[in-house]
Amino acid sequence: MITNEYSIFETELTVRPDDIDMFNHVHNSKYLDYVLAARYEQMEKYYNMSWETFEKMGYGWVVAKVTINFKRPLKMGDKMIVRTGILEMNEKGSNVQFEIINKTTGKVSSDGIFDYVMIDLKTQRSCKVNEEMIKAYSI
Amino acid sequence: MITNEYSIFETELTVRPDDIDMFNHVHNSKYLDYVLAARYEQMEKYYNMSWETFEKMGYGWVVAKVTINFKRPLKMGDKMIVRTGILEMNEKGSNVQFEIINKTTGKVSSDGIFDYVMIDLKTQRSCKVNEEMIKAYSI
Amino acid sequence: MITNEYSIFETELTVRPDDIDMFNHVHNSKYLDYVLAARYEQMEKYYNMSWETFEKMGYGWVVAKVTINFKRPLKMGDKMIVRTGILEMNEKGSNVQFEIINKTTGKVSSDGIFDYVMIDLKTQRSCKVNEEMIKAYSI
Amino acid sequence: MITNEYSIFETELTVRPDDIDMFNHVHNSKYLDYVLAARYEQMEKYYNMSWETFEKMGYGWVVAKVTINFKRPLKMGDKMIVRTGILEMNEKGSNVQFEIINKTTGKVSSDGIFDYVMIDLKTQRSCKVNEEMIKAYSI
Repeated sequence: MITNEYSIFETELTVRPDDIDMFNHVHNSKYLDYVLAARYEQMEKYYNMSWETFEKMGYGWVVAKVTINFKRPLKMGDKMIVRTGILEMNEKGSNVQFEIINKTTGKVSSDGIFDYVMIDLKTQRSCKVNEEMIKAYSI
Repeated sequence: MITNEYSIFETELTVRPDDIDMFNHVHNSKYLDYVLAARYEQMEKYYNMSWETFEKMGYGWVVAKVTINFKRPLKMGDKMIVRTGILEMNEKGSNVQFEIINKTTGKVSSDGIFDYVMIDLKTQRSCKVNEEMIKAYSI
Repeated sequence: MITNEYSIFETELTVRPDDIDMFNHVHNSKYLDYVLAARYEQMEKYYNMSWETFEKMGYGWVVAKVTINFKRPLKMGDKMIVRTGILEMNEKGSNVQFEIINKTTGKVSSDGIFDYVMIDLKTQRSCKVNEEMIKAYSI
Repeated sequence: MITNEYSIFETELTVRPDDIDMFNHVHNSKYLDYVLAARYEQMEKYYNMSWETFEKMGYGWVVAKVTINFKRPLKMGDKMIVRTGILEMNEKGSNVQFEIINKTTGKVSSDGIFDYVMIDLKTQRSCKVNEEMIKAYSI
């Protein structure tokens, strides 16, 4: 994971049996859901500006682009650490790097970058991230 | 499938690879999603009062109870016919029976009953089904 | 929940953001996945005969029938307690009752019964549950 | 979409109601599942060397990397055209570009690239793509 000026936060998750696919691995698209689950927790726990806080203000975060590498598959029963950290955050949105670590082996299962934009929930269009938000997430 | 006074409608669906689980079968909870997909199509196509029509009026249909039998698993690539029909419809909601037929073998893969109630999308509480709606669905 | 001679076990789970549907509730079919996740954990933790133990012996547990009531929807961020207990277990399979409790309100979100049968993973056909297995689960 | 020497194939899919998320859009990770569904169909229909053919030979295709852009969200009831084409195929694997087009508007909903590697289903390790396979897919 690239070092940078922003903090890296960790969330522990467990593979759910319904995540398993025809190869007896976690299905590839579920890794995106793990990153979302981790960021959702971290928004409230570490940034003190939760998903629900944005929602009440009429905003939501949606993914504009994902680059994801699948390195070592997670399997039934595995526990993982999802580490995420902001790479860049400005009025246009934020880029978040992530690593999913298999808790048993300590090895990287998947890593990559999510580009997020903020949308106005009424118009469903992207909108500017304001100074207060950028400040809250600049830790 | 129990014969009754209401019409039986059919929707053809294809198993999606992400529906497959650790047994190389369609995962059990996905059958509920197939019934929802079939009813969604049939609401517009056959009853002429679509999901979106209810939504614009401020209503949504949610499931209150499901009884489902898993008889013969669907597999990767299978096509199915989802047959559904109302058993009862009144101001409290509707009960819909279904059968999922494997298109290749003609055999029943799954069957059961969904009990639906209508909710007011604003209050998220259940509300009365009106006469016009009952009439539209009494075919 | 029906009292009976078998133990009731509890597993805590958290709603994952990808479980949320068009009503901003947990999607109905996901409750089945929560019960599976709870039983999977409880098989290892409490019965001492895990999913993987059965798998190594060439067996798997599949669902033959589900009856499920949806009472109060879970939402984004909710934590739940999944309580399950065997109602009956014999050579043909087992029936497991469950209750999903919203951890914040203490109220029942969903309850019902799963009927399981054991399959031979090679033939994919149902097979007899032996005495040792029945004994391990008779707690 | 980048023009190239390989053919572009099209598959039509319909959004399933269980694909919808808290924003009343198709959930981001489901787009990966749509690409998989399209490739699965195209492997049999156009390349004449199906998923099951590889499976019988003891091989499977898994995703090593995905780059995906989310441009315009698909919604409840939408139909889409999934266009895919090989960018490169060699003994190490294949890179497949894709575009998901909203059938009603004709606009790009999502596009990107999947990098696939072939695995030996027994060892679960990546293995060489042979000449016959490369030839079958070089159309």
